[in-house]
Amino acid sequence: MTPFLDLASDSGFGLANLPYGVFSTAGHPARVGVRLGDWVVDLDVLEQHGLIAAAGAGRGPVFSHASLNAFMALGADAWDAVRSRLQDLLRADGAPDLRDSATLREHAIVPLADVTMHLPAEIGDYTDFYSSRQHATNVGTMFRGPENALMPNWLHLPVGYHGRASSVVVSGTDVVRPSGQQRPDDDAPPVFGPSKLLDIELELGFFVGPGNDLGSPLPMAEAGRQIFGFVLVNDWSARDIQKWEYVPLGPFLGKNFATSVSPWVVPYAALEPFRIPGEAQDASAGNPEPLPYLRQPEPRSLDIDLTVALETAAMREAGADPHVVATSNAKNLYWSPEQQLVHHTVNGCNARPGDLMASGTISGEEPGSYGSFLELSWRGTRPLSLPDGDTRTFLRDGDRVLLSGEAVRGDLRIGFGEVTGTILPSDSTAGGLPLAS
Amino acid sequence: MTPFLDLASDSGFGLANLPYGVFSTAGHPARVGVRLGDWVVDLDVLEQHGLIAAAGAGRGPVFSHASLNAFMALGADAWDAVRSRLQDLLRADGAPDLRDSATLREHAIVPLADVTMHLPAEIGDYTDFYSSRQHATNVGTMFRGPENALMPNWLHLPVGYHGRASSVVVSGTDVVRPSGQQRPDDDAPPVFGPSKLLDIELELGFFVGPGNDLGSPLPMAEAGRQIFGFVLVNDWSARDIQKWEYVPLGPFLGKNFATSVSPWVVPYAALEPFRIPGEAQDASAGNPEPLPYLRQPEPRSLDIDLTVALETAAMREAGADPHVVATSNAKNLYWSPEQQLVHHTVNGCNARPGDLMASGTISGEEPGSYGSFLELSWRGTRPLSLPDGDTRTFLRDGDRVLLSGEAVRGDLRIGFGEVTGTILPSDSTAGGLPLAS
Repeated sequence: MTPFLDLASDSGFGLANLPYGVFSTAGHPARVGVRLGDWVVDLDVLEQHGLIAAAGAGRGPVFSHASLNAFMALGADAWDAVRSRLQDLLRADGAPDLRDSATLREHAIVPLADVTMHLPAEIGDYTDFYSSRQHATNVGTMFRGPENALMPNWLHLPVGYHGRASSVVVSGTDVVRPSGQQRPDDDAPPVFGPSKLLDIELELGFFVGPGNDLGSPLPMAEAGRQIFGFVLVNDWSARDIQKWEYVPLGPFLGKNFATSVSPWVVPYAALEPFRIPGEAQDASAGNPEPLPYLRQPEPRSLDIDLTVALETAAMREAGADPHVVATSNAKNLYWSPEQQLVHHTVNGCNARPGDLMASGTISGEEPGSYGSFLELSWRGTRPLSLPDGDTRTFLRDGDRVLLSGEAVRGDLRIGFGEVTGTILPSDSTAGGLPLAS
Repeated sequence: MTPFLDLASDSGFGLANLPYGVFSTAGHPARVGVRLGDWVVDLDVLEQHGLIAAAGAGRGPVFSHASLNAFMALGADAWDAVRSRLQDLLRADGAPDLRDSATLREHAIVPLADVTMHLPAEIGDYTDFYSSRQHATNVGTMFRGPENALMPNWLHLPVGYHGRASSVVVSGTDVVRPSGQQRPDDDAPPVFGPSKLLDIELELGFFVGPGNDLGSPLPMAEAGRQIFGFVLVNDWSARDIQKWEYVPLGPFLGKNFATSVSPWVVPYAALEPFRIPGEAQDASAGNPEPLPYLRQPEPRSLDIDLTVALETAAMREAGADPHVVATSNAKNLYWSPEQQLVHHTVNGCNARPGDLMASGTISGEEPGSYGSFLELSWRGTRPLSLPDGDTRTFLRDGDRVLLSGEAVRGDLRIGFGEVTGTILPSDSTAGGLPLAS
């Protein structure tokens, strides 16, 4: 499929991708668009002109909103119809309605450089899983030793917890270094101050479609059609705050100061060619077979290359490119998105359109494939070397982290773009709080 | 203050209370009202007729919505002004606008028996704390022994975690017994099935007002004015699911199948006479002094009587009254609402209007004051006797639980009403899922 717009030959944003996002332009409010190369196609304009009717003829608009929730709520049949229609409208040899109307093209097609991206959804609830075996093993090894690295439940269910929805932000939002209680000396009282062990987590997240009613679990056979699409997630983490607070109820202030997501939601349909079997969940691989509600006959895993890059303030001033500190892949996840969603609702918990579910840190087996500085620096004991001679264990003020993702097979490229954030010093908005006890 | 409407002499819903709620009547959509005795005063009607202007003259309506969020967002000065105006409009010797207009009274005053109550707010995020020392000690004693009952962090910070906002429901909503993974035998694989250890948690929750921007903590001096009002919370818990899943990231499916709240939000202003010092947080009581950001000079605690009652299906059929199984008091909380809110935002996490923060189970020192069946039955080892000869350790299908609350001092009574829920069998909406492995 060739679009009527010019695209770079290696663009990850061709007609096979068409990710959705919420964007605004100068003087115009946020609405829904789809990315094609370095252009944004304004779906609000196409909807107003009757070129697409996601909710069906005569039903209310879904693309004029500042979130994708209304579209997510329509379900997979509507997503498929809109995607197919968009591919037809944007193909060089497709429907002429947009292609041949200079006026409409003028209104509906905006250069990517002219838009501001917003959070793609109003997130009712954000859940974070812990689905990479290597990450759980690494963290478990550091804190409990290699014999007790994985908890007894880990291979039986996708461990997860509730995150904070209010502090999920779109890529590019600065992150203020959090302050909080820490206890660096186990024999002394806790102290208060800026986190010294500020970290990232490389994750993949998905947005839920229509969801389910309270008390009515989603069975595995329906789970795939409930998944709208995927974004990259950086689950910023303050390890010193987390370590002191997390027993026995889990992470709280060590995580909820910010979670960043990439702005373009890649449709699950675009990732269909990248579904792969994943690690066998049975005796053939030495794993316990999951309970029946979690068994998934079709391919469970996704082959998506993921990258963590760091740009320090000094690198930025010197005009140096961000330095890649880790490369990983979504196939390192043991539990699939479908398994996460089915598990989440099996007790009757209701999912709603716009809910965000993230994978947990995605680490591979090699040290260079770890998805956090906690692992990359092995708890601070192995500093990372940067090209300019600087080193890092955890993040310093001014550091900018860039997570990116792309699925590639032959000529087919599906880009996720990136999710970025820069660390601001803790005192920039400390609000006059005492900073030490 | 005597209202112009007739109230029972012992009503907890006089002019000193005036709790807010969201109600609907036959053929009319949900809107905001205030409770006075066994009447609901329709604030949408009063606002439409210009008798109250919460947002200021000429600003948009705030009481026509199906949630209190818009009113919560206005802040404490607006809450004070509306409360004062309502007391004036409803007093026998107050403003004549409502009192002397038969037409307006006809429209604006609805019998409580004619209304359906709804969730009072759109809850962006729900946080559950763990602030009762006796509860934490009881649970810790059961699972780790009396020497290690309280975790090292407990006396230094209000431990809390993120709950699930989507499954917060209003009083009266039935609760389907959740199914999920459990591991009753530590030497065998987990099994799937309905929870056998279904429990309640007696809690007090508060709704947040305007909140704070991401990165800008709320200092203690501002915290009290950020708290809109209080409800009773039943944090339903499936102990067998919780026990197997909760390590290391905290409770998830053991809690998120339902959390019930009472429909009437008691304004913090109505509770001012019931503020008491609370347990000293310093060496005088053998406690560590909190870090400066958590120190609170004014009274930290609230003297509110709380009751847990149980009505089994057999009792209901026999026409018997619910049986009180526990009486507790909000003064059993070690950490105050202000301390919870300040701690929650100290790392820059943003709170938004309508956020719900609950206290955690409120248990006193005596066995009859424990706020969960886990504690009341001491992990199932001490069955509770009911008046008809039946016994309970955890909840059975058909059981209805009623939590109620009232603050009383002399003639002053501030009622919370109650939060109720009835357990439905797990198979009522099981959706064809396999129930055993």
